[in-house]
Amino acid sequence: MSTFIDKLHAQWRRTRSLVCVGLDPELSRLPPVVAGRGGAIAAFNRAIIDATHDLVCAYKPQFAHYAAVGAEDQLAMTIDYVKSTYPHIPVILDAKRGDVGSTATFYAREAFERYGADAVTVNPYLGGDSIAPFAEYADRGTFLLCRTSNAGGADLQECLVDGEPLYLRVARMAAGAWNAHGNLGLVVGATVPRTVGQVRAVVGDMPLLVPGVGAQGGDLAAAVALGRGRDGAGLIINASRSVLYASAGPDFPEAARAAVARMIADGACTAA
Amino acid sequence: MSTFIDKLHAQWRRTRSLVCVGLDPELSRLPPVVAGRGGAIAAFNRAIIDATHDLVCAYKPQFAHYAAVGAEDQLAMTIDYVKSTYPHIPVILDAKRGDVGSTATFYAREAFERYGADAVTVNPYLGGDSIAPFAEYADRGTFLLCRTSNAGGADLQECLVDGEPLYLRVARMAAGAWNAHGNLGLVVGATVPRTVGQVRAVVGDMPLLVPGVGAQGGDLAAAVALGRGRDGAGLIINASRSVLYASAGPDFPEAARAAVARMIADGACTAA
Repeated sequence: MSTFIDKLHAQWRRTRSLVCVGLDPELSRLPPVVAGRGGAIAAFNRAIIDATHDLVCAYKPQFAHYAAVGAEDQLAMTIDYVKSTYPHIPVILDAKRGDVGSTATFYAREAFERYGADAVTVNPYLGGDSIAPFAEYADRGTFLLCRTSNAGGADLQECLVDGEPLYLRVARMAAGAWNAHGNLGLVVGATVPRTVGQVRAVVGDMPLLVPGVGAQGGDLAAAVALGRGRDGAGLIINASRSVLYASAGPDFPEAARAAVARMIADGACTAA
Repeated sequence: MSTFIDKLHAQWRRTRSLVCVGLDPELSRLPPVVAGRGGAIAAFNRAIIDATHDLVCAYKPQFAHYAAVGAEDQLAMTIDYVKSTYPHIPVILDAKRGDVGSTATFYAREAFERYGADAVTVNPYLGGDSIAPFAEYADRGTFLLCRTSNAGGADLQECLVDGEPLYLRVARMAAGAWNAHGNLGLVVGATVPRTVGQVRAVVGDMPLLVPGVGAQGGDLAAAVALGRGRDGAGLIINASRSVLYASAGPDFPEAARAAVARMIADGACTAA
C-alpha cells in the first residue's frame, strides 16, 4: 500500500524542497485578473499550483478560507486538480478538526473520502480516542497540533506537566501510544525555532508541519536547521500569504514562484 | 442589544427545560419515512424540531454530520428553519473550531455570518488569541471545550498543572481573562458528574453545555444537581441519538418528544 508518508518522502526526493504552499484564498486579496468571476478561488489556486508544482513538497488548503464564503465546491475542485494533474504531490487539508470518537469518524470521512485529502490536521485536546478515527486511515496522514505559531499558543501548550511543557507531552504521545499506524505528524510553529528542535529530539523522523514563516515572521533558516530529521528532510515548511499575495498584478503566478524559490535559497528550505 | 445569553435565559424561563436536542443526523439511521429523498436531513430535523420546540432550551446541530456528506445546504436550511419558525430558541453550532487568529476570523464568519448561529463551540488548545475572534461577536456565544465526555479526554485535560487538572485551568481562564465580552460558556461532559460541579464552582453562573448523557451514558440527575447555577438554570443538557433515534418508525417525532420529556421528568432537567 502506498501511503501518505511514502508519497511525501518521494516528493522530498524529487524536488529537494521542504516548502509547502498554503492555499488560503481570501476573496478580498485575489488579484484583479482573476477576482470577481465565478470559480475565482479555484482559478487562482490552479494558477498558483501550476507555477509552483516543481518547487514544493505539498499543498495545504486551509479549510476556513473556503467555509467562510460557502466555497466547499472550490475546495474540492482545488484538491481534485492537484490529484489529477500532479498526482505525486500530497495534499494536506488543514481543518484542525477534533471531536469525540463517533463524531471524529464523520470528520475523517469528510477529509479523506469527501475531499480525498492525503492528510489532515487535527487538534489533540480531546485525546487519543478522538485521534484514532483519523489515524485508522492507515494510508493517509494525520498531523496533530503540538506547539502552534500564535502568541496565545503559550496559554495551554506551555503549561508545565511533570516538569515539561504540555506540547512536549503531546509530542511524546504522538510518537508513542497514539501512533499505532505510524502515520502521525505534528504541527510545530516556527516562531520559536528552538521549539522545533525540541520536538524533533522527541519524535525521531516524524514529519513536522511548520507554519508561521513568511507573513507570520518566524526565523526560517534557524527552524530548518534545528528541525531536520536524520534523513535531511522531515520538514514541511508552510508559507501562505507571502507566496499567494507576492504580487497583486497579472504576474502573481511568477511572483509566487519567485517567493517559493527565495524560501529554498535564502531560507535553506532544501532536503539535504 | 439582545444577546445569546439573554436569549438563552429567556428560553430557560419560558420552558423551564435544561434540555438541548443535538441535531446530528446520520443518513444510515434516518427513519424510512423520511430517508432516501432529496433534503431528507432537513426534513428529518424539521420534524424533530416541530415535535420538541416547547420542551428545549436550545438546538445544537453538530457540523461533522453535515460536512461528511456534503450537506452544508441542509445545515443552513435547518438553522434558518429554527430562526424563522421559533426565533426565540437559540441555535448552537457545534463545530469545535480552533485556529490562529487570522484564520479564526474566517471560522467565526462561517458560524455567525454564513450560518447565522447564535453560538458556536471552540477548542481552546490554541489559546486566548484564537478565541477572541469568536468572542468579539459580543451578541453571540462561544462555548470552549473544557472537560469532554470521552475517555480520551483525560489524556490532556486531566494533566496536572500547578496541582490542578488542565480543564480547571481552562475554566479559570474562561471565567477571567478570556471573557472580556461576558459571552463565553464551557463544554463539560456529564460522564463524571463531579467534574460538572467542580467547574461550576470556578465559573459562577456561566452557561455549561453538557453532552454525554443518553447514548453516551452519563449520570444525568447527578450532573444536573451538581451543575446548576445560583439561578437554578445555567445548564444546557444535550442529548442527540437517544432523542433522534428513539423510534425508527413513522412515530419518530412523538418518540423524540417522549424521550425529551423523560429527561425532564426522570433526569430532573428542569430550571429550578
